[in-house]
Order: sequence, then C-alpha cells, then structure tokens
Amino acid sequence: MRRIKLGMVGGGQGAFIGAVHRIAARIDDRYQLIAGALSSDPERAAASAAELGIEAGRSYSSFTEMAKIEAKKPGGIEVVAIVTPNNLHVDAAVAFLEAGIHVICDKPLSISLAEGFRIKNSLQKSSAKFFLSHNYTGYPLIREARDMIAAGKLGRIRVVQAEYVQDWLAEPLETTGQKQATWRTDPKITGGGGAVGDIGTHAYNLLHYVTGLNAIELAADLSSHVHGRSVDDNAHIWLRFPCGAKGQLWISQIAIGNENALRLRIYGDRGGLDWEQENPNVLWFTPLGGLRQRITRGSSNLSQAASAATRIPAGHPEGYLEAFATLYSDIADVLINQKPSDHLPNIMDGLDGMWFIEACIASSKNNGAWCGRNL
Amino acid sequence: MRRIKLGMVGGGQGAFIGAVHRIAARIDDRYQLIAGALSSDPERAAASAAELGIEAGRSYSSFTEMAKIEAKKPGGIEVVAIVTPNNLHVDAAVAFLEAGIHVICDKPLSISLAEGFRIKNSLQKSSAKFFLSHNYTGYPLIREARDMIAAGKLGRIRVVQAEYVQDWLAEPLETTGQKQATWRTDPKITGGGGAVGDIGTHAYNLLHYVTGLNAIELAADLSSHVHGRSVDDNAHIWLRFPCGAKGQLWISQIAIGNENALRLRIYGDRGGLDWEQENPNVLWFTPLGGLRQRITRGSSNLSQAASAATRIPAGHPEGYLEAFATLYSDIADVLINQKPSDHLPNIMDGLDGMWFIEACIASSKNNGAWCGRNL
Amino acid sequence: MRRIKLGMVGGGQGAFIGAVHRIAARIDDRYQLIAGALSSDPERAAASAAELGIEAGRSYSSFTEMAKIEAKKPGGIEVVAIVTPNNLHVDAAVAFLEAGIHVICDKPLSISLAEGFRIKNSLQKSSAKFFLSHNYTGYPLIREARDMIAAGKLGRIRVVQAEYVQDWLAEPLETTGQKQATWRTDPKITGGGGAVGDIGTHAYNLLHYVTGLNAIELAADLSSHVHGRSVDDNAHIWLRFPCGAKGQLWISQIAIGNENALRLRIYGDRGGLDWEQENPNVLWFTPLGGLRQRITRGSSNLSQAASAATRIPAGHPEGYLEAFATLYSDIADVLINQKPSDHLPNIMDGLDGMWFIEACIASSKNNGAWCGRNL
Amino acid sequence: MRRIKLGMVGGGQGAFIGAVHRIAARIDDRYQLIAGALSSDPERAAASAAELGIEAGRSYSSFTEMAKIEAKKPGGIEVVAIVTPNNLHVDAAVAFLEAGIHVICDKPLSISLAEGFRIKNSLQKSSAKFFLSHNYTGYPLIREARDMIAAGKLGRIRVVQAEYVQDWLAEPLETTGQKQATWRTDPKITGGGGAVGDIGTHAYNLLHYVTGLNAIELAADLSSHVHGRSVDDNAHIWLRFPCGAKGQLWISQIAIGNENALRLRIYGDRGGLDWEQENPNVLWFTPLGGLRQRITRGSSNLSQAASAATRIPAGHPEGYLEAFATLYSDIADVLINQKPSDHLPNIMDGLDGMWFIEACIASSKNNGAWCGRNL
Repeated sequence: MRRIKLGMVGGGQGAFIGAVHRIAARIDDRYQLIAGALSSDPERAAASAAELGIEAGRSYSSFTEMAKIEAKKPGGIEVVAIVTPNNLHVDAAVAFLEAGIHVICDKPLSISLAEGFRIKNSLQKSSAKFFLSHNYTGYPLIREARDMIAAGKLGRIRVVQAEYVQDWLAEPLETTGQKQATWRTDPKITGGGGAVGDIGTHAYNLLHYVTGLNAIELAADLSSHVHGRSVDDNAHIWLRFPCGAKGQLWISQIAIGNENALRLRIYGDRGGLDWEQENPNVLWFTPLGGLRQRITRGSSNLSQAASAATRIPAGHPEGYLEAFATLYSDIADVLINQKPSDHLPNIMDGLDGMWFIEACIASSKNNGAWCGRNL
Repeated sequence: MRRIKLGMVGGGQGAFIGAVHRIAARIDDRYQLIAGALSSDPERAAASAAELGIEAGRSYSSFTEMAKIEAKKPGGIEVVAIVTPNNLHVDAAVAFLEAGIHVICDKPLSISLAEGFRIKNSLQKSSAKFFLSHNYTGYPLIREARDMIAAGKLGRIRVVQAEYVQDWLAEPLETTGQKQATWRTDPKITGGGGAVGDIGTHAYNLLHYVTGLNAIELAADLSSHVHGRSVDDNAHIWLRFPCGAKGQLWISQIAIGNENALRLRIYGDRGGLDWEQENPNVLWFTPLGGLRQRITRGSSNLSQAASAATRIPAGHPEGYLEAFATLYSDIADVLINQKPSDHLPNIMDGLDGMWFIEACIASSKNNGAWCGRNL
Repeated sequence: MRRIKLGMVGGGQGAFIGAVHRIAARIDDRYQLIAGALSSDPERAAASAAELGIEAGRSYSSFTEMAKIEAKKPGGIEVVAIVTPNNLHVDAAVAFLEAGIHVICDKPLSISLAEGFRIKNSLQKSSAKFFLSHNYTGYPLIREARDMIAAGKLGRIRVVQAEYVQDWLAEPLETTGQKQATWRTDPKITGGGGAVGDIGTHAYNLLHYVTGLNAIELAADLSSHVHGRSVDDNAHIWLRFPCGAKGQLWISQIAIGNENALRLRIYGDRGGLDWEQENPNVLWFTPLGGLRQRITRGSSNLSQAASAATRIPAGHPEGYLEAFATLYSDIADVLINQKPSDHLPNIMDGLDGMWFIEACIASSKNNGAWCGRNL
Repeated sequence: MRRIKLGMVGGGQGAFIGAVHRIAARIDDRYQLIAGALSSDPERAAASAAELGIEAGRSYSSFTEMAKIEAKKPGGIEVVAIVTPNNLHVDAAVAFLEAGIHVICDKPLSISLAEGFRIKNSLQKSSAKFFLSHNYTGYPLIREARDMIAAGKLGRIRVVQAEYVQDWLAEPLETTGQKQATWRTDPKITGGGGAVGDIGTHAYNLLHYVTGLNAIELAADLSSHVHGRSVDDNAHIWLRFPCGAKGQLWISQIAIGNENALRLRIYGDRGGLDWEQENPNVLWFTPLGGLRQRITRGSSNLSQAASAATRIPAGHPEGYLEAFATLYSDIADVLINQKPSDHLPNIMDGLDGMWFIEACIASSKNNGAWCGRNL
C-alpha cells in the first residue's frame, strides 16, 4: 500500500475546515501530510506544522514558494489541499496547477465566476487534476439516491425541494470578533454571497449531483435579517430545469432551532425520495402507489456506489468510528501524558461483564432466579 | 506531537473489528501501527501486515513471540490491541502484560469469569495498563448523560431500561459458514453466552458507566429461537441496584427490523433521559414537571467531558467525517490507480457554484427576476 | 343545555367533507341536524336525509327553497353548513344570509374573488353571521403557537416556511371518474385553482392565523405535472410581509410519499417554531440560544386558548375531527352566548383566500412576477 | 337510522372517562343518552344530568334503582355505560345484567378476580350482553396488525415487547387531593394494583388482542418508588406463551418525560411490527430480509378490519376518541344488527385482566417467582 504525499494551504491553528480535511485524509490511511503553508504568518505556520508532525523544512509561509519548491523536490507533494477562505482559492490553485501538483480545493470555488475561470484555464494547460470538496456527495445514501434516479426508480423528475438551514448567525456574531462569522459575512472575502455562498452552493451542488439535472435559470429573493449585515442570511430560490422540472431552495443561517439541516426531497412521476444530513444513514423512498420504505446505510441490496463508500455495518451510525477513536485518544492521554481517566473501561469492567454473562446463563437455567453479584 | 507505537493481535484479512480499531487509532493521529500478529496463519499474517504497511520483520504469527520480541526491541511497541475472538483474549493479554506492554482488549473480557481473573492477576504483577474497548462509552452525549447524572440532574435513580437489539441472526446464518455468525454462536469460542455476551455486555457496561450503579443481583430469561442454535439469541434480564433502583434489559439478535438498536432510558426522581445509538447526536432530557428537551452533540453548554470528545460542530453528524474521507479516498483512487470517478466534484461544479451565487444575488437585486444559466 | 338547530347544504351520499362536518358538530353535542338540501337530485337528497334521521318534510332538493321555508318555520334552522363544491358556495350562502340564517361555509369561499364579494355584500344587509371552516386553526397547538407569537416569544418574525404537500394526484386520477379528483381538477367548479385552492388556501390561512401577518405581495411558480390536467398540481410561492419578513410556500398534490403533510415553521429574532399536522400534538419551540423543546397538547402551562380546545390528556393523540369540532363549539359560543371569538375565520379570511388563489395564478402566468395584495 | 337508548353510571361533574365515553358514543351518532346515575350524590347527579340534557325524571342517584325502573319503563335504556372507579363496577354491572340491560364497563373489570366472576355468573343467567372498554383495540392499525399476524405475515411469534409508560405519578400527587390520583393509588378502590391495573391491563389486553397469544405464565418485579405510596408505580413483567414465545412488559407511571407511551413490538420468524399509541396512524413492518415499511392508517391495501375502523383519509391523524367510537359502533352492530363481532373485549378479557393484576402482585411479593395462568 502506498500513501499519497499531501500538502496543505491554510488550516493552521484556529482554523476549522483544515482539521476536517486532515482527519478525512487519515481515515482510510491513503495520504501522508508532509508539507504545508498553514498560515501566512510564518510563526503560526511553523507552530502549526510542528504540531502536525510536518518537518520544519517543509513548512512554508507562502504558497507560491511552496508550490515551486515542492514541485522540484524529490519526494515532493503530489497533491495539495487548499482550505483557506474563499478569496485565496484561485491564486493558490493556479500556483499549484502550474507547478504540476494536483489540487483539492474547498468550496466555493472563488469570489466570482469570472475569477473561477482562471482555474479552468490553468487546468487546460496543466497535467494536474482539480477536485472540489463538496463533501456531502460522499455520503453512501446520497450515492444510493443518485444511483436510484439514474436507474429510473423515480421516473421523470418533477419537483426538487432542497433546504440548508442553520441558526448560528441569528445574531450579529460577526461583531464579536468570532473568526468564522467575521470572514463569512465580509463580501470582500466571500465575494458577495453570504448564506448562498457558504451553504447554498452545497445544496445546489447536491441536488445536481443526485438528480443529474442542470438548472436552466433561477430566481431568488435574498434578505439580510440582522441589522448591519452586508451579505444575505436567508435566501428563497427557485430553479427551472429542462422538461418542466421545478426546484425550490431555502437557505438560511438565522432559522433558530436548526443546526446544520441540509435536506433533499426529490419527486418524479414514479416515486419520491427524502434525505436529511443530520440523520444521514437513512434514505426514505416511496414508489408510486406503495409504502414509504426506510433504506439504511450498510443494508443489503444497496448499489455498488453506496457499498463502496460504506465502512461499517448497518445500524452503526458512522459516528461509531469517532466514539471508538475517543477511547483510543483517552488511552493515549493516559499513556503519554500520564493523565488519569475515569472514562476508560478497565479490568473490573471486564470482570463485571463476565459476571453478567455467567449470571444471565445461570439465572435462566434456574428458571429466572435472582443471582447475586459478588465482585 | 509524538505517536504511540501500536501493535495488533488478530484483525487480519476477513476480520471486522480489527479494521475498526485501526481507523479509530488513526482519526486523532496519536498512534502508529508498527507490528502485528494479525493471524495465526503465517501467510495470512504476512499478507495482512504488508497491506497495512507493517514491515515484514514486525509481522508475527505467534502473539507470544511478538510479546517477547517487541518488549526487548528498541522502538518496540508500547501498547497492543487484541481483537481476536473471545477465547484468545486472556492468553494474549497475559503475554503482553507480563512483557510490560499495555493492552487494549476487545470485549467481552474472556470466556469465563474465572479465566478473566488471570488478567487481573497479571495486572497486579505488571507495570502495564489494561483497557477494554467498550466503545459506546466514547459517544459525547453518553459522557454528557453521565455528567448530568453525577451532577444530580436526574435525582435519585429509580428505573433503568436498556435495550440492545439486532436482527442479523433471525435466521441460522451460522449454518452458511458466515464467519462472524459462526464463532459468535459457538460456545467453545464465546464461552457460553450468545447475544448476552456479544452485545448484552455492552448494554450492561453502558448503563453502569452512565449511572454509576452496580447491580446487586440479576434474573434472566434467555432463549434460543432459531432451531439448532446452542447459545441464546434473545434475553430478558432484570437488575436490582442499591436503594431500590430497578433495571430491565432486552437483548436480542432476532428482532426483525432492528439493526444495531442500543437504547438507554434512565429515570430518577428529578428527571428522565433517553438516548439511542443509531442517532447518537441527540440526548433527550425531561426535568420533572418540564418539557422534553433535545440536547445535541456539539451544542453550547455541554459538559467538559462531552466537549472534549467532540470533533465537529453541532448538526454535522459524526459520519460527516467519513463522507469527507470518502472524497479523499476517491481522489486517491484517481491519483494512484488512474481509476476515473464520476463521483468527484470538479472545476465545472465549482464554476456552476459560482454561477449559482452570482445569479442569486443578481436575481434578488432585480426583484426576483429569472436569471439564465449560461455555462 | 340547548342544541343549535342545524341544516346542511350538500354532503349527501358519496360526499366526503359533509360527513366530517356532521361528526364535528356532534362531538361536543351542541347541534341538532334537522334539515338539509343534501343533494340537488331529489331522490338522493331524500335518501340521504332519511339516513341521517332528518324528517322527510325537512329534506329539500333546492337550497333556495330550504332557506325560504326554514326562515319562516317555527323551530326552523338557525345555522346552515354549506359543504358543496366551490361553485355553489356563494349562491347558497347568499340565500341563507338573506333569509337571516347563519352560515358555516366550507373553504375556499367561492370560485372568484369578485363572486366572493357577493357574500360580503349580503352580510352587510343581514343580521346573520358567516363562518368559514378553516379547520386546521382548531388544533390546540396551533392556538398555542399563535398565543406564543402574540406574547412575543418569537420576537419580530423574519421568515415563515409553510408546506402543504400530498401525493394523491400524482397520477391522472380525474380520468378514472373518481369524484373528489374530478371536481377538484375542473376549473369550472373550482374557479381555476388546483392545489393552490384546495390546500394552498389552508396553508396560507394558517400562517396568517398563527403569525397575524398579512402578506403585502406574493410571487408564485405553479405547474401542472400530470399530462392533460388543466389546473396546477404543484406550487412554489413567495410572500412578503411588512417590515421585511419573508415567506415561502410549497403546495403540491404530486409529491409521492406525502399524504397530508401540512407543516408550518416560523422564525423570529428570538425563537423558532415548527409544527406538522400529521403529528399535531407536538409543537417544537427553540428560544434563541436555547435547546429545542417539545411542547405537547394537553401538557401543563399551555395558554388558555390551547387548553380550551383540549378535550383529553397529553399523550392521547387528539385528531382532526376534534379540531373541526372546536370550530363548531366556538361558533356555538358566538351564537348562543353572544361571546365574541377571535378564532373564527370570517368573511375577510374568505376574501383573502380568493385573492391568494387569483394572485397565485396571475403571478404564475406572468412568469412569477410580483402581484400586490389590495384588500 | 335508529339510535340506541343509552344510560350511564358514573361520569358526573369532575369525572374524566365518562365524558370520553359520551363523545365516543356521539361520533358515529348511533346512541342517545337518556338516563344516568351520574353520581351517588343526588344533587351532583341531578346537576350533571341537566347539563347533559337528560330529563330530570331519568336522573337517578342509585344505580340499583335506575336498573329496576329503566328495565320496566317503556322506552327505557337498552344499554348502560359503567364509568365509575373500579370498586363499583361489579355491583353496577350485576344490577343491570339482572335487569336485562346490556352493559359497557370501563376497565379493569373489578377489584378482584373472584368478584369479577360475579359478573360472569350474572351473564350466564341473563339475556343481556357485556362489553369491556379496552379502547386501544379500536385503532385501525391495531386491527391491521392483528390481521397481518393472523394472515401469517410475521410467521411464528417469538418475542413480544410491550410498554405502557407515563410520568404523571412521579410525585405523590395523591397527597394533594387530586381526584384521579387519589383513587388510582388507593388499593381499597382499585383492588390492589396501581400502574399494573390502571394501564398494565391495557398493554396486556392489547398484546393478546393483536397476537392471539394467551400467556401461560408470568413473572413480575413491581415497585413503588414514591414514598408512602401503597400500590405499584413501576412494573417489570415477563410472559411465557405456548411454543416458546416470550414476552416482556414495562409498565410505569413515574418515567419522567413520558405521557401515555403505549408501545407494542412483535417479532416472529418472518417479520417484525412496531406500533406506538402516541402516533397511532403509523405501523412499522419489516419482513425478514426486507426494508422497514411505514404503513399508514387510511392508506390503500389495508385489511377490511382496518378500513372499517377508518373515518378519514390517510394523513389526517385520527384520534383516541375515534378509536373509542369504533368500539361503540361495533357494539351497536352487535345489538341492532345481531352481527357477531370478534373485536369486542368480553367477560373473559375482563377476567384475564384480573388474573393479570393478581398474578403480578403475587409474583412480585414472591420475589418474582413464576405464577401460572389458570383460567
């Protein structure tokens, strides 16, 4: 098994999505993070790199320099993940593509359509590849939904309803200096879109990914409900697709009571589908004239695409792996930091479990008689 | 940051839980898997090790030998994960503990209480530590529940209802040669318990972990509903705790329609809690006389214990990381194996997203007029 | 206790909503059904009346005749329920109002806004009262929601999302001769609206009832997805309210997998509410910065309005019929006790509904242009 | 259409279940309430009767007198509903049965099994019929479940899990003088059972109704968690059925966060069913090896039994009251049309319930020992 040599731009201390990219790259153990321009501040870049086990010589404070040096270095990175705010995506992507290094870029692509074309132009002159991290397309049941539609199980698509709704910007959080809120509401950094850019692009991409439909035109009613905010925080959007299919989107960051409520409902002339990101292991399907059915991630008879994206059996929510990882991290704390833990199951828990099994068997053999615990 | 040197016993090709342990160890990047006795069959052991990037010299076919050699080797493993079927746990654990190597052991502890005490005895003579992988204790909201009970929010516990219910053994799967079913229904390997050992111990451990209560006695009514099966596949169990608290458990592997339905409901004289493993990011709490409240993983005001076990914001189900990882794996397939993918978002998706944002803004500025797509 | 003398127009054999009205009138035992023009076919009218225990002499085949005779008869009806298809509402209502008999009329009011005004005109010359049966306003938790908003618990309203979604017209059911489908898709009988008239008026009325907001303008994108259907079966609608509040509606009768999915979500600057008609005993409320809370019908601490509409304890699901009965009881309070009610839909609600339908159609024909409200 | 002449014993001002019976009797309009012994206090009886439109001469303060007079009177009542606390059921029932008047009796049958036999004896000497109001059997989807099991869709039953869980007695409400709590916790009035009698009988009856299984024996662990309470408020119960089927019940009135959570889960060797009373319009069915399916009340392809109990279309939640009304309608069919019914709970169900209560208490006193069923 060989691991791909990976670099990262952005994602230093205090960032959010960079850490997510790194965990994602580790889960299947197919990447090695060996270089980074993790911050434009050289000190923070170096400190962040050290924390991540990147050698000092492979920590850069300029992505331009990083692209040039890594491209020439034997054992240089093969691919770079760009996890900065939107306004830096294009310059960074172009620098690496020109250096022949593959790019994984966070969304949205850029701060304007026109600027985005610069990446397209670079790609045409480069042998390197470009990937955009619309991560919701990675859910197994999203792939199942796509496969079902491609296989005609919904018939001709009539109506698509998409929602991506949050509430973390219901108040003017950007005025408190909170970093994520500040850049996401600054049109100079985002390019003009607020909620439509930050999360609306995910919903729009997802409905395209699943249905295969391209919009012909759209209409939108954006609003900004928080006083002093200069980007939209609520959006009502209509889409028209070929052959009369219609779409309606609701995008909001002020809908109190919603955390990350991305939902996709699709209706054709032969069936309907319903999927919610907060419970991603369930996909509801109703065939015309039939009962609503609950398709679960990991269950038998799923498509090859869904099965290939599945790591653990049905009924184990994918967070199962993280809970498992938490135990390993707690153990690491005990072993390295000599930090005692009252969370970790130990030998007494093990013996107790053995008592439990043996007492169950003994009690049952004895017609359900009570059986005392004597540990 | 330093990574702990990790070895593994069991978990070779065709195994299930070993791969889960390895992913768990990678997620927070605090371990390096460098040695293994992955199978008792030397060829399979070697092939499995090669796949995992373990050096040939660190692949063993005997865990006894592995314990001895690794203990003396400079840079030898510090901790070993034992992920074999139950009947090998004790011999393996004792071998490593005697060699001074820490042990992470899968559950249940052993094939009998008596045998389990051999580990306890080894521990008393060793400087090494022992951990049991009751992984469900790693869920953030399980830790929150524990913290709430310890803080008195439920008052004095009165009733505990625990369920762990599956359906994968509703038919005699073990007669088909399916590996997981075969050893789990063989009393020589499991030690006698069927469902009570395999999943009942998780439910029992979890209720103890969360409530802090130790059972005084239990009564059980086990049954085996599949013809020819020699271990239980359904169990009804009562527990009695100090001070009059009562518990009832239902453990089943034949309840058709249930995948991995572990649920814990706890009632005190001041409140009630309800948690389901298949939707682990939600914990329901009702204070006496109040409304039912939905506590979510990652939300504000959670306990330090829950927060420390949380990696991503509220509303992102922990499977979010896996979906992200799926994209990284797909990209690896493209880059290494030149395997084309029709799943990966590309530059056109990025440009399309930019059109979406700009069209939304333009349409909205134009009072919701339709705006055509021209990509 | 005295019972109100009730007559009915429409609702003979084979009808749907007439029977619902009669049950609703009986639940709280405040009405006596003693006369009817249950069908325009004299034989069916007589047979239907006999089944209902109406004396032969009080069964009419013409509502005009019925109005005249009952108005003069000692012991004549005090109120009439009009439960015919839309196109007969106005003539019938006017006949009874002119005869001094109170009217309970099914929705929507009429086949056109203009025609609806005839009722308004009659009312100005009559001492009789007029009620419209927007029965969803009778749910206790809808009244609770209204009370909460009036009390400021949501703060200033920002966004309203309403859905009323069914699937029973996903196929051309009207071509099979099914009676309910046939008249509901015949613009001569409905007045032009399809889904927007049949169910959209309910959603629209409900959001107004709960929030107190009157739309300033709307935009709509209606479509007819079933070949040969001459009325809409799917509608996407935007609303604008005073002070920048926005609304989005989705109305559909072709969304496979949905039975009668009326849902209302309301977001202000201090909290959010979520209610679904298919599970009407639960209302979700999230205060800004707090946990999502589950308010149940019948629980303690509800408003007087909600409590007054509640017949049975929490946890006993109360149904659609009871909500209907609540309206009848409110009307009885008005008629017998001269107790004014601010819960009952009145003529203005009826007109508003007509505007709503016509504006939807007009906007849609005009490519979704904004259409002002001028009532 | 003729209406049955109905009388009522109990149910005067301040009572709960009497009003529910009256509404249920009205919903399908097949009864006329014309006489009552609504209270043993003559003044309250008269006032209650007047409120209900019962003529003064038909209001009694003694049910014995009422039985005698009504039996002889031309136009006297045909059937009486007994809605008193448990301790009066038998005397009242016997009085009416001996007078030849049919009886509808609230559950549980009596305060003891022995006393219950007095009704059985009276029945043998009377031409009158006896009905017990286990109203949950009136839900359409409960009838669907029963039909599915009878049709073999679950195969041979293996495991039945029933729960009936509330929280209204989590505190010593009976010490505040609250009427419902006071008599329900007074063993002299209830006959000894607390939660097991009040709600446990419903769960037990329901699982029998649906599965057709009769318990062979049971074991129970009752407890009383509120200081000073002399009846059980939490019960853990096991059942054994013929052919190895097992049952587990949980009955509680102290489980904070639960209102009226009656749930029934049934597993055979070919499928599983799950139904919850708080959302009674949904029944979950999973066939062996298939997807979980959502069966809704009112949807097409339901059994004749379910369809006959359905008044309104799918998606319109039908309530507790309607289920109650279904029983009254079934009884009307029996009385008027001489149409036999296999849906109606009868004297044997009543006796069985009494056995159930007493066996629960006996087993619990005997430390949970098995207690045989000997009816």
